[in-house]
Amino acid sequence: MKQPKIQITDPFWSEYRRIVKDVMIPYQWSVINDDVKIDIERENANAFKASEKSHAVQNLKIAAGLAQGDFYGFWFQDSDVYKWLEAVAYALRYAPDQKLQQTADDLLVLISQAQEADGYLDTFFQIRAPQLKFQHVSFSHELYCMGHYIEAGVAYYQTTGNQLALTIATKMADCIDAHFGPEANKMHGYPGHPELELALAKLADETHETRYSDLAAYMINQRGTKPNFFAEQANNNEPLPADFPFAEPEDNGQQYFQNHVPVRELQAAEGHAVRMTYLLTGMAHVARQTHDESLQAACQHLWKNIVDKQMYVTGGVGSTVAGEAFTFDYDLPNDTMYCETCASCAMVFFAKQMLENNPDGEYADVMERELYNGTISGMSLDGQHFFYVNPLAVNPEASALDPNKSHVKVSRPAWFGCACCPPNLARLIASLDQYLYTVKDETIYSNQFVGHTATFGADLTITQSGNYPWSGNISYTINTQNKPEFTFAIRIPDWSQANYTVKINGQLQNDLLDLDHGYLKLTGPWPATTTIELALDMAVRTTQANPLVTADLGKVAVERGPLVYCLEQADNGAHLPTLSLGTESTFQIQDNVDLGLPLKLTTVSTTGAKLTSTNSDQLYQSAQNPRPTTAQSLTFIPYFAWANRQPGEMQVWLRQH
Amino acid sequence: MKQPKIQITDPFWSEYRRIVKDVMIPYQWSVINDDVKIDIERENANAFKASEKSHAVQNLKIAAGLAQGDFYGFWFQDSDVYKWLEAVAYALRYAPDQKLQQTADDLLVLISQAQEADGYLDTFFQIRAPQLKFQHVSFSHELYCMGHYIEAGVAYYQTTGNQLALTIATKMADCIDAHFGPEANKMHGYPGHPELELALAKLADETHETRYSDLAAYMINQRGTKPNFFAEQANNNEPLPADFPFAEPEDNGQQYFQNHVPVRELQAAEGHAVRMTYLLTGMAHVARQTHDESLQAACQHLWKNIVDKQMYVTGGVGSTVAGEAFTFDYDLPNDTMYCETCASCAMVFFAKQMLENNPDGEYADVMERELYNGTISGMSLDGQHFFYVNPLAVNPEASALDPNKSHVKVSRPAWFGCACCPPNLARLIASLDQYLYTVKDETIYSNQFVGHTATFGADLTITQSGNYPWSGNISYTINTQNKPEFTFAIRIPDWSQANYTVKINGQLQNDLLDLDHGYLKLTGPWPATTTIELALDMAVRTTQANPLVTADLGKVAVERGPLVYCLEQADNGAHLPTLSLGTESTFQIQDNVDLGLPLKLTTVSTTGAKLTSTNSDQLYQSAQNPRPTTAQSLTFIPYFAWANRQPGEMQVWLRQH
Repeated sequence: MKQPKIQITDPFWSEYRRIVKDVMIPYQWSVINDDVKIDIERENANAFKASEKSHAVQNLKIAAGLAQGDFYGFWFQDSDVYKWLEAVAYALRYAPDQKLQQTADDLLVLISQAQEADGYLDTFFQIRAPQLKFQHVSFSHELYCMGHYIEAGVAYYQTTGNQLALTIATKMADCIDAHFGPEANKMHGYPGHPELELALAKLADETHETRYSDLAAYMINQRGTKPNFFAEQANNNEPLPADFPFAEPEDNGQQYFQNHVPVRELQAAEGHAVRMTYLLTGMAHVARQTHDESLQAACQHLWKNIVDKQMYVTGGVGSTVAGEAFTFDYDLPNDTMYCETCASCAMVFFAKQMLENNPDGEYADVMERELYNGTISGMSLDGQHFFYVNPLAVNPEASALDPNKSHVKVSRPAWFGCACCPPNLARLIASLDQYLYTVKDETIYSNQFVGHTATFGADLTITQSGNYPWSGNISYTINTQNKPEFTFAIRIPDWSQANYTVKINGQLQNDLLDLDHGYLKLTGPWPATTTIELALDMAVRTTQANPLVTADLGKVAVERGPLVYCLEQADNGAHLPTLSLGTESTFQIQDNVDLGLPLKLTTVSTTGAKLTSTNSDQLYQSAQNPRPTTAQSLTFIPYFAWANRQPGEMQVWLRQH
Repeated sequence: MKQPKIQITDPFWSEYRRIVKDVMIPYQWSVINDDVKIDIERENANAFKASEKSHAVQNLKIAAGLAQGDFYGFWFQDSDVYKWLEAVAYALRYAPDQKLQQTADDLLVLISQAQEADGYLDTFFQIRAPQLKFQHVSFSHELYCMGHYIEAGVAYYQTTGNQLALTIATKMADCIDAHFGPEANKMHGYPGHPELELALAKLADETHETRYSDLAAYMINQRGTKPNFFAEQANNNEPLPADFPFAEPEDNGQQYFQNHVPVRELQAAEGHAVRMTYLLTGMAHVARQTHDESLQAACQHLWKNIVDKQMYVTGGVGSTVAGEAFTFDYDLPNDTMYCETCASCAMVFFAKQMLENNPDGEYADVMERELYNGTISGMSLDGQHFFYVNPLAVNPEASALDPNKSHVKVSRPAWFGCACCPPNLARLIASLDQYLYTVKDETIYSNQFVGHTATFGADLTITQSGNYPWSGNISYTINTQNKPEFTFAIRIPDWSQANYTVKINGQLQNDLLDLDHGYLKLTGPWPATTTIELALDMAVRTTQANPLVTADLGKVAVERGPLVYCLEQADNGAHLPTLSLGTESTFQIQDNVDLGLPLKLTTVSTTGAKLTSTNSDQLYQSAQNPRPTTAQSLTFIPYFAWANRQPGEMQVWLRQH
């Protein structure tokens, strides 16, 4: 069965994709060209000083010899340009735009001019320290930046057929292949920030050149072995200048890089969360390409560890700002976490690869949780403000006055010095069509409820429509002429598996309800037209966490469909932690609520309780039971939509009474 | 009425005082002389690298020209020596020791040799950078160290009559007075770390030299004024060398020093907690000496802010490791706080000054809370291990794996690179007699239930006995011959004011129960012997926090008498946060429990509940109500005694069900 061509028609996602195409792509282009005056914020109190501007395109011009000047900005800034280009590649598929395509074509010429004859391209090292190329890859991000280009180049070539886009990518990959590998005359290294591995895997898929997947496999397998490659480089190579914006890691920093043990020996997701999840994405892809079962087993083990022990209910991962990292099982604090937008994007990438290896609804469930919660919470609905950190509980006073919460922003800033997240979101949303299906042998797995038309070759078209995530009623129409043999598998979300209905051609089905790994499987023979009407359980759910999650003890999260809901001060007043929910609460649904945003929302409300203070002057007093409360109506909005109004408190988990 | 001479006979405190005299003082002497091999730990992951040794006495020898070598250790290490000397001064009062006194006398000679002719003494600057004396007082700690000497010198002089001890102190104070003050030819500055102010106040009391209290008052009043003195020094003076262990603060760091506004304009306790509480102690003392009502009003305002909004139930203050600082009202996280032992010691100092200004049981209540909880939790009962940070909830896994909890130690280390806390505890415990009474005009206020004999001149002796904090039965015997006129005021703790009894000469009193500012006041005429038998309410109490304390919502702390209790893993198994207490719990008391410690303890037990996991593989599931629990017996030990067994979890606040 062929991979489908997909046109997304979904009302919810079309709006996001419009924002990406019409707002984010032009906005980000003006940012990376320094054509717009922006406030660039620090990520947190300890981060590098905020930059004045991006300078990313200018760096390429300087490296290409087309402009004079010094490198400016974060040393891995090239990747901002490449992620923008990748987003453009995807956006042009659903919104052709001659002018934008010309801009991207011109950018590719610039990139090709900046690229050296041997394929190397990293403007920081080219401008600042050409003698140190590939000499300190722990923090240099050279391989990371080139990986991002390779992804972009492949995508742009796939969209437009622009051969230069692919040539730059293969030249880069060949350059890296010439320097890294098992041979004695090569470096036995790998990227400090994994990304190249997944990019090489994509390049291998496109070019059918196994050298690229082999190189990715080599880097994955070499990681964490002894002697430690980063330490060897630190000890043996010309040292990094003292005025460089980065330094070699201290010995104890290898866990941060997932470099303390070989990847198959990792017992849990550890270290920097985006590094970990990018690495896992590459591992899963390469495991499939190289038929490496032990590598796939490692991916599965770490998937389970994340999803069962280290993932927030919003899909966020990374429990601490220190190293932007995973910490330990069940450590999920709601107000000091990191939950970087990029890490949630990477969980979508990882889930996709796991689905390709082994279609199981569990991966698509997590993908859905990320798509509707932890990823898009990273952007405002104006397309011009972004979160790096996605908290589950916010108190503006704490963000202002507790230095350990300085990373927890209460409003989305316009841009960041380290601007990885905004273009990552743009490319994810623009490529959403890639996440709807997994096609494996003769089975078509429908993973997401995003309205679209999918064309599987000349004789099979599948159309999906609905008003998800607000409604659970989803319709499929399958059109085919020549009665092909295939199985159509529809994921039934874990939260609806106890309660859903299916009608086929108007007939309620009772004998189809056994699910296979979370999928409802329909087999042929297929008439010319088949309609499937799915009704999911859209009742409001209260969810509790494993009791080992100390932060959530005695609390519930409110969910409906794929959405996690939250309380905001704008609707519920101050002191949100003093609110609680009865165990027998009934919920009311309000559809099409206008909060002044481009999307109308469905909100959830109920009556809860608010603790009252009997003697507000006293800090401690004898316990009163029951504690005095007053009834209060509670209004929940979708988590992704928080912080689109005035700054205030926000909270996902709330106490039960 | 004269100040009393006091001999402590209390079984509880006598053991602590024995540990101070027999263990801590010899141990700390061997540490500061590098005669013992110790593991010196970092305070947290971001602290300066651990030192190999103290080197504090050796620094004095080098400064005195008696040894060769470089300064070593923290740049304010001199203060470790002075706090040791101060502890010795107090210990010699209750445990005369000719050999120890000779050691201290010899040390004083060394100190006098290290002191310069003009009175200056700071071994770091003398050895490393004499040209920078007093040029960067924001972080130099010169005034802090000399302040600590002045306290020690006064105390040692008072105990032994050693004139050299006092001469060194007055020379220091004169040196500082020659350099700082309102005159045009002096620096208009004040210490980066307040301490000198309270020391100068003590010196003024001893010498009746108002120049010293005036200098303290000047520094207090000058603090926080514009232009900012620290910024002026940073801008105008020869810069600190780059290899110095400290640097000038960034502009936004003034709040850390309580230097952003004048002290009378501080709305809340802010910045570094020990700086804040030392400053307040000096402010309250100087307010009394200079009859400064507005300064006393500022002390009272900030006292209320701390006690009503920023103090843990253990008496701990300082809600964050970042700057070891106060944060904001009601921000009292239990697992990331600082609660430095020194800050609780300083709260005792502050409370004493507030009592002297205005005897009110509220100050003595807090003093008691600090003495029995937040201070002595800072030491193990072997006298050789110490906490800097006193958490209210500990998970060893989090301390090991969450960098933001690296400061939360699960066992008391042997010493610290920055070793302020151990000698601070030693001097507090050794001087406990100074905290029992406030004598104001013709009223004797008995503030604490520490067994002792107090002699108020030739004709009045008051003896107190009991088995506090384990028993609430306290006996006083007042012996006098010449019928002096005085009022005897006994503090009734806030936690017992609703339920206590008093017998005078065996007669139960019913007409005495009206308290005056927390004191039960007895007036004469006084027969030759009066016995007073007080019975306090020792029922176990459950305490709740103000609902604005998010960290404690839905939780209670268990208290009995002056003691806060806690759960330890050793008694209650792992996963303490999953335990909860019923609202109608009854408690059992076990006296004289032997946990292998020098003190036998009273423990509290009851039956509670433990959450069970229905499906331990799942991180999130539909809320079950009621959540499945199993009954579990809970054993609470006094908070001060935690971490004296094997490392494990500990928790003060626990959920109610």
